[in-house]
Amino acid sequence: MKIKFEPIGIIHSPYTKLHDMPIQPSAARGVKGQVEVYEKYLPALSDLDGFSHIYLLYHFHLTKSVQQKVIPFLDYQERGLFATRAPKRPNPIGLSVVKLIRVEEHILHIENIDAIDGTPLLDIKPYVREMEAVEDIRIGWLEKHTSRINSQLSDKRFK
Amino acid sequence: MKIKFEPIGIIHSPYTKLHDMPIQPSAARGVKGQVEVYEKYLPALSDLDGFSHIYLLYHFHLTKSVQQKVIPFLDYQERGLFATRAPKRPNPIGLSVVKLIRVEEHILHIENIDAIDGTPLLDIKPYVREMEAVEDIRIGWLEKHTSRINSQLSDKRFK
Repeated sequence: MKIKFEPIGIIHSPYTKLHDMPIQPSAARGVKGQVEVYEKYLPALSDLDGFSHIYLLYHFHLTKSVQQKVIPFLDYQERGLFATRAPKRPNPIGLSVVKLIRVEEHILHIENIDAIDGTPLLDIKPYVREMEAVEDIRIGWLEKHTSRINSQLSDKRFK
Repeated sequence: MKIKFEPIGIIHSPYTKLHDMPIQPSAARGVKGQVEVYEKYLPALSDLDGFSHIYLLYHFHLTKSVQQKVIPFLDYQERGLFATRAPKRPNPIGLSVVKLIRVEEHILHIENIDAIDGTPLLDIKPYVREMEAVEDIRIGWLEKHTSRINSQLSDKRFK
């Protein structure tokens, strides 16, 4: 079964190379970008400006292969791919929560963007913590490395 | 530009009809399900058991059309599609945070599942709040309706 998707827009960011990028939105605080949603979707953007934060779902379009075990940027040993956010996934979909600063027609001005310039956008969803049912969070191998999430930059390992 | 994805597994849940379902994981507390990841991806599941919560990205496979303005289950007036979690999206990708109870080989036992039985799975990501940079959340039109998120059931409007 094949599932076919088409971009609904493009993410613009200051990052033009895969290395030396922040690896998560929390490491990209204040980094400004724009989401250019294709004009035909203008009606679907109504009411979005009421939300302070949105999920961007996008295509890791530079990813050419799948790697089931990866050494994440935040660790020194191999981990199962699905226990990481590494891009070499069977379906290379990226997920970032960004801050929505303002909506100008079909352009979203955002902050905290950690995607590379030119990334194809797949979906936008409002960020609503009340929809989740999340308490007593455990984060496995990452527990020891949280202090580095905000400072660790990417390198060329997932090129 | 077409992007082609293939399911990596199937979500099993008690829900076999699109109506009378919980509309979000927060309304499905304690509802048990299984994620059957295809066996070939077993190596990619290593280390996942350390995480208490995971994101499931899946295909809204029963959705046949796009609707740019929708009346969400939680409101009485039309809203822009991207300001809602309604399924009739240009790229019908669903996103749920579920509780990971235990991993048995390639089967994930989960709770708080709000997807219909048989839903094709696209991706699994660890839920790590430290990766987000989210403060001072505003949730627009939903602000007035949060008390109903946990009790409102779905109906047939997005069939």
